[in-house]
Amino acid sequence: MTKPDSTTAGGLEGIVAGQTAVCTLEGRMTYRGYAIEDLAAGASYEEVAYLLLHCELPTRPSLDAFQTRIAAAAELPAPLVDALRAIPVDAPMMDVMRTGCSMLAHYDPDVADNGREANLRKAERLLARLPLVMATKHRFNTGRAYAAADSQRSLAENILRLVTDREPDQAATQAMNTSLVLYAEHEFNASTFTARCVASTLADLHSAITAAIGALKGPLHGGANERVLEVLEQVGAPANAEPWIRNALAKKVRIMGFGHRVYKHGDPRTVILTPVCATLAEQTGNEAMEQTAAVIERIIVAEKGLPANVDWPSARLYHYLGLPVSLYTPLFVTARVAGWAAHVMEQYDNNRIIRPAAEYIGPTLRKFVPLAQRG
Amino acid sequence: MTKPDSTTAGGLEGIVAGQTAVCTLEGRMTYRGYAIEDLAAGASYEEVAYLLLHCELPTRPSLDAFQTRIAAAAELPAPLVDALRAIPVDAPMMDVMRTGCSMLAHYDPDVADNGREANLRKAERLLARLPLVMATKHRFNTGRAYAAADSQRSLAENILRLVTDREPDQAATQAMNTSLVLYAEHEFNASTFTARCVASTLADLHSAITAAIGALKGPLHGGANERVLEVLEQVGAPANAEPWIRNALAKKVRIMGFGHRVYKHGDPRTVILTPVCATLAEQTGNEAMEQTAAVIERIIVAEKGLPANVDWPSARLYHYLGLPVSLYTPLFVTARVAGWAAHVMEQYDNNRIIRPAAEYIGPTLRKFVPLAQRG
Repeated sequence: MTKPDSTTAGGLEGIVAGQTAVCTLEGRMTYRGYAIEDLAAGASYEEVAYLLLHCELPTRPSLDAFQTRIAAAAELPAPLVDALRAIPVDAPMMDVMRTGCSMLAHYDPDVADNGREANLRKAERLLARLPLVMATKHRFNTGRAYAAADSQRSLAENILRLVTDREPDQAATQAMNTSLVLYAEHEFNASTFTARCVASTLADLHSAITAAIGALKGPLHGGANERVLEVLEQVGAPANAEPWIRNALAKKVRIMGFGHRVYKHGDPRTVILTPVCATLAEQTGNEAMEQTAAVIERIIVAEKGLPANVDWPSARLYHYLGLPVSLYTPLFVTARVAGWAAHVMEQYDNNRIIRPAAEYIGPTLRKFVPLAQRG
Repeated sequence: MTKPDSTTAGGLEGIVAGQTAVCTLEGRMTYRGYAIEDLAAGASYEEVAYLLLHCELPTRPSLDAFQTRIAAAAELPAPLVDALRAIPVDAPMMDVMRTGCSMLAHYDPDVADNGREANLRKAERLLARLPLVMATKHRFNTGRAYAAADSQRSLAENILRLVTDREPDQAATQAMNTSLVLYAEHEFNASTFTARCVASTLADLHSAITAAIGALKGPLHGGANERVLEVLEQVGAPANAEPWIRNALAKKVRIMGFGHRVYKHGDPRTVILTPVCATLAEQTGNEAMEQTAAVIERIIVAEKGLPANVDWPSARLYHYLGLPVSLYTPLFVTARVAGWAAHVMEQYDNNRIIRPAAEYIGPTLRKFVPLAQRG
């Protein structure tokens, strides 16, 4: 076995684990060759999900058919609704998403088929149903009944309606759509790589995506967006921001929403989302939190050289949309499922089991002493 | 980003992804420094699980306390029993294990605590409860009622009793124990590496182990032991073996149970398990299957140079123990959970997020055309 020095830093940093045609972060960030800026400005999340799964942007008829299939799949099997009702109110919502995804497999008509067409159907059903798992459990937790998605509305609109029970305006729907587009895919991030590890054993799509949900839960990954809002709420008024952050930096507290394994000079998604967030803050009377965030960002950039990543504005965006913190990482799931599914299918198409080597640092051979003679 | 040529083969073969003190496969295969041969001959699965989790073999009092805690945890929360009852009879049992593990988190008193002591308690509960998830769902699928584990018996005995509703004899219990010991841990295999990927985001133990179960399901990994028995049953009598395997090899059919990413010259676990399997075959009147297997093994080794791996004898062993094929990979789960948990805790102790690089092979930058103008 080779033991390249480059791995001693850990985390496989800079080690190429495989090839992908889904997304690149080098130079311009693109999904299937389209710049993320163009997609965020001009495409619906549904168009982007289609692009990720089918490699091309849809024509109007293709998009209509895709949306019709997703709308038709937007319901939960009754036993899953019962299970969601039974899960304790204080269960972490990402645990609920993980269980929900795993259980959806039990009721998927293609459960035993791992072919490409079956996987496209499974991916569409997950696109339709994972938002319902999230919204349904949140509705139960807040004393409301199961409500179905409206087949005439977009995923962004349905998510806002089902979570808040309010009619979202155009600006809110547009902002939610932009966040879903920006969260839809991100190359070999930790959850996507986890999904590819599972797929590399030729396990099924639901196994891979259930695993990815677990990985996304971690505070060093998707869980960061929840921590971001906790910090902003803790800091409070803009006047508190500078003393708070200088104290936190002096105590070497890690502030989520800054820095990134890949982006050393800034995250293009943050550049797109920050003005969307500012506009929404104005419309919703949240200018104070924007100011607090701006102070913290300025000081972390100046003192640590860490630019804000996409979790930094997206947490505020979700807050301004009236969404509870417990759903921020589940919202990330509802978006990223498109990218995960695209990667899983790509892994199947050119598969080799992902099985790295390890450097052994444990004890050398020890003499076994039977239980009866152990002191 | 570096793009070493060594990764173009894919699957991270030979790339050191991290350090471990749990197990080595170089030279002698050891768990925490103890040769696998010594452990298989002289230790119970419970002793081995303790060794993996606590880094040392237990003394008698430590083992008694460990077994008492496991026995006390050997029950399923009522909502999980209801959910298992509701899952369709034809759901793959590995999907049931994945859902069961995910749901156990909802009822774990330490769900919100990711510290070492909490994780040891969670690992003990999973050791106690994952066999119950498997046995309970199998009992429901075969028209039987929920039955509890017997706190006075070993995990090996309880598994045999709950699945078969028969009193296992000493030879059967011993054979099951040996298979659990040999399946308990195996360095950076695909499911363990998956668990470490999840843990590297600082997601919790249940997320990591749920992910690992999904990875183990794949036919290139744990799922192989089910395929092994399907082949043996398909071949039938020893006289059919040579023509069957020569025909399969000519058609380039992949036969599961042979070859291994790490072991190029033989799997030490196979050396240990093969005589156990032969003895059990004699005791249970299964000599014919042993002969069929011997012919297939001899020809694959001669023609392809691929030695048998541990799945080859373990599938027969489970068959001779009267266990249904649908439980072979879940049995692997009930054993490997000890190794997975040890690796997850080791990952937390010296963590860096596992986030490799990718080689982009997709389209170069494309001009975005809005939906209304797409042809």
